[in-house]
Amino acid sequence: MSSPVTSPAAERPEGERVGAGPGFPVVAVVGGGQLARMLQPAAVELGVGLRVLATGVGESAALVVPDVHLGAHTDLDALRSAAAGAAALTFDHEHVPTAHLRTLAAEGVAVRPGPDALVHAQDKLVMRRRLTDLGVPCPRWAAVADADALARFGEDVGWPVVLKTPRGGYDGKGVRVLADAAAAHGVQDWFDATDGPLLAEERVAFVRELAVLVARSPSGQAAAWPVVETVQTAGVCSEVTAPAPDLDEDVAARAVDVALRVAGELGTTGVLAVECFETPDGQVLVNELAMRPHNSGHWTQDGATTSQFEQHLRAVLDLPLGSTRARAPWTVMVNVLGSSRPDRAAEDPAQMYRSYLHVMARDPGVKVHLYGKSPRPGRKLGHVTAWGDDLDDVRARARHAAAFVAGEVDE
Amino acid sequence: MSSPVTSPAAERPEGERVGAGPGFPVVAVVGGGQLARMLQPAAVELGVGLRVLATGVGESAALVVPDVHLGAHTDLDALRSAAAGAAALTFDHEHVPTAHLRTLAAEGVAVRPGPDALVHAQDKLVMRRRLTDLGVPCPRWAAVADADALARFGEDVGWPVVLKTPRGGYDGKGVRVLADAAAAHGVQDWFDATDGPLLAEERVAFVRELAVLVARSPSGQAAAWPVVETVQTAGVCSEVTAPAPDLDEDVAARAVDVALRVAGELGTTGVLAVECFETPDGQVLVNELAMRPHNSGHWTQDGATTSQFEQHLRAVLDLPLGSTRARAPWTVMVNVLGSSRPDRAAEDPAQMYRSYLHVMARDPGVKVHLYGKSPRPGRKLGHVTAWGDDLDDVRARARHAAAFVAGEVDE
Repeated sequence: MSSPVTSPAAERPEGERVGAGPGFPVVAVVGGGQLARMLQPAAVELGVGLRVLATGVGESAALVVPDVHLGAHTDLDALRSAAAGAAALTFDHEHVPTAHLRTLAAEGVAVRPGPDALVHAQDKLVMRRRLTDLGVPCPRWAAVADADALARFGEDVGWPVVLKTPRGGYDGKGVRVLADAAAAHGVQDWFDATDGPLLAEERVAFVRELAVLVARSPSGQAAAWPVVETVQTAGVCSEVTAPAPDLDEDVAARAVDVALRVAGELGTTGVLAVECFETPDGQVLVNELAMRPHNSGHWTQDGATTSQFEQHLRAVLDLPLGSTRARAPWTVMVNVLGSSRPDRAAEDPAQMYRSYLHVMARDPGVKVHLYGKSPRPGRKLGHVTAWGDDLDDVRARARHAAAFVAGEVDE
Repeated sequence: MSSPVTSPAAERPEGERVGAGPGFPVVAVVGGGQLARMLQPAAVELGVGLRVLATGVGESAALVVPDVHLGAHTDLDALRSAAAGAAALTFDHEHVPTAHLRTLAAEGVAVRPGPDALVHAQDKLVMRRRLTDLGVPCPRWAAVADADALARFGEDVGWPVVLKTPRGGYDGKGVRVLADAAAAHGVQDWFDATDGPLLAEERVAFVRELAVLVARSPSGQAAAWPVVETVQTAGVCSEVTAPAPDLDEDVAARAVDVALRVAGELGTTGVLAVECFETPDGQVLVNELAMRPHNSGHWTQDGATTSQFEQHLRAVLDLPLGSTRARAPWTVMVNVLGSSRPDRAAEDPAQMYRSYLHVMARDPGVKVHLYGKSPRPGRKLGHVTAWGDDLDDVRARARHAAAFVAGEVDE
């Protein structure tokens, strides 16, 4: 009779590290979401081990990684335990308290990116101050302590303005667009509930959004993928085209230069995503920073010689970086978001499997990547990539496949 | 404090299947070697679950799959337990007793490939008889019961002849090349130790070896990858070039036709590898069959739209098959075999990690795939792929990287 129990670390021979081959390192990642999950295929190929600190065994990454620690990212002991014996500690989100990271670093944990870099992805005010000091083009901004200050900022740069909570926001959460002074005075409760000032920014009249993905290793090697065009829907990344179509070469070079400079000046380790606005006059203004694999880089799984997930592992281990070259003239990535159609019952996840089958039958060349999550309206459940020589065709294929898997279309 | 124990199946909510997203199936694979291991990245991307029946927690696949059952492939109860609740049971080797597979199939397990197909990959005499009945070109062969019969076969087809044990051989094991009648009489002990006749085959004077990889689903859909050239060293696959250089189009078409016909006639499910000899007169003779992902198909991980591992999972789940199109004009795969150099200490596996680092620094475009195994002379430890427009360059890069990781070269 076989033992029906998965292989717990406790049963393994002393000194054998789950997931890693002998002599090979383990990377611990804080967070059990899809970004941690997508590190696992890369870790398997590289022969390095992946350990995940997750809050539950049903989380996206915990489903596919043997070495799962259960605990909260706010619990210093949980972080310590996850980092023990690992060659590097990294993240699938930005929410670990900076103080904990400083403690871990002081205790000898290779925190990558380190707290002094990561704080720029955790705190948007810190980020804006630093980028401005570096002369990096940004939207006009101000730290505003109350509704009156916000109203004055709006009068100064023009309405509407964007108000952001410096910490904790993601995917459009913690962001409000305010039309006028009256609207500004209507959010005094937000100031009251927040410790410290909020970040006010001009609303940039952009032509489109771009993202520059770079990776940097502790020894300072850095590499950039081609600049991509991103489309956000309701604050969530919904589509990425690589490379950004019709992007002026000088603008692209400047954008890459800014991203590499930010990576170097901030001392990031691993993947850094720089989300930007392209303005009508050819400026590229930095919107957000993320210091981890990023939705704008999912296209690299199928579209680049080295995926962002492989590169992130290589970077945090201080292994030499891989080629970031595109593998096709065009690669398009479209997110699969949970449908809000009432007939698309969230209670029947098997419906997604049937859609999946249909998409595979219709287009043998698209790749559907799924995260093992239960469908909920608007939830990121997966993504689709397609690639080829003809952008219109590639985009249509990726869009249709994603919409079909999500249940937004029936044919 | 976090729980330092990996997520055992027993702790998971009732009905939740480790590895699979809700509503998605689990595939159980018998065997914990590198072929099972390389199914895991594909399973993660597809969102399906992978369960492995391994003999130890340190096995290649057991290191990277949460859902590990411990047991022997010869133990019917272990097989039953591994198959319970899985949508399909498949294999990373051919050694499961046919009788067990028949029992499982009778009990309702979706054994894929089924026992009636798999027996042709398990028993070389059964395979030769069937292929000959189908009119598939094979080397001349005979079932020989003793040394005298073997000597008569040699006199008939010409020396040397190849003698094979019908069951249990792999990577050159269970194969002897006999130079003459005296050598034939020297292996009578092999006949004495074997239940039933052995397989004698003419030694084909081949130009080169080819392999045709196809996949077939239970509903009969089939797809073939481009025909590749393989190089065997001491009976072990060492290098694969995709597509086979300078292969006559008609010869290629005939080879693919034979492989698809064999898949259909035998009713295989999943990947079928047909290893062939190309003769000076343009014949393609079938050497061996394997009904699982195969070393000759590792190039597809980086070189084809759909890898053999993804395709195998799609096929055994009866999902529509993916495109088998090559992604580059040339892709070369070279195996990393454990070195027999005395200064390359098997006791220091970290040496391989240092070589690995060097290879990454030298060539950012190669992909090194490692299996998490301890180095031993001649052992398959991993493989390297490279791709591009210039075959000589691609081959040189892949060969150098593999030799360096293996420790065969120092510069």
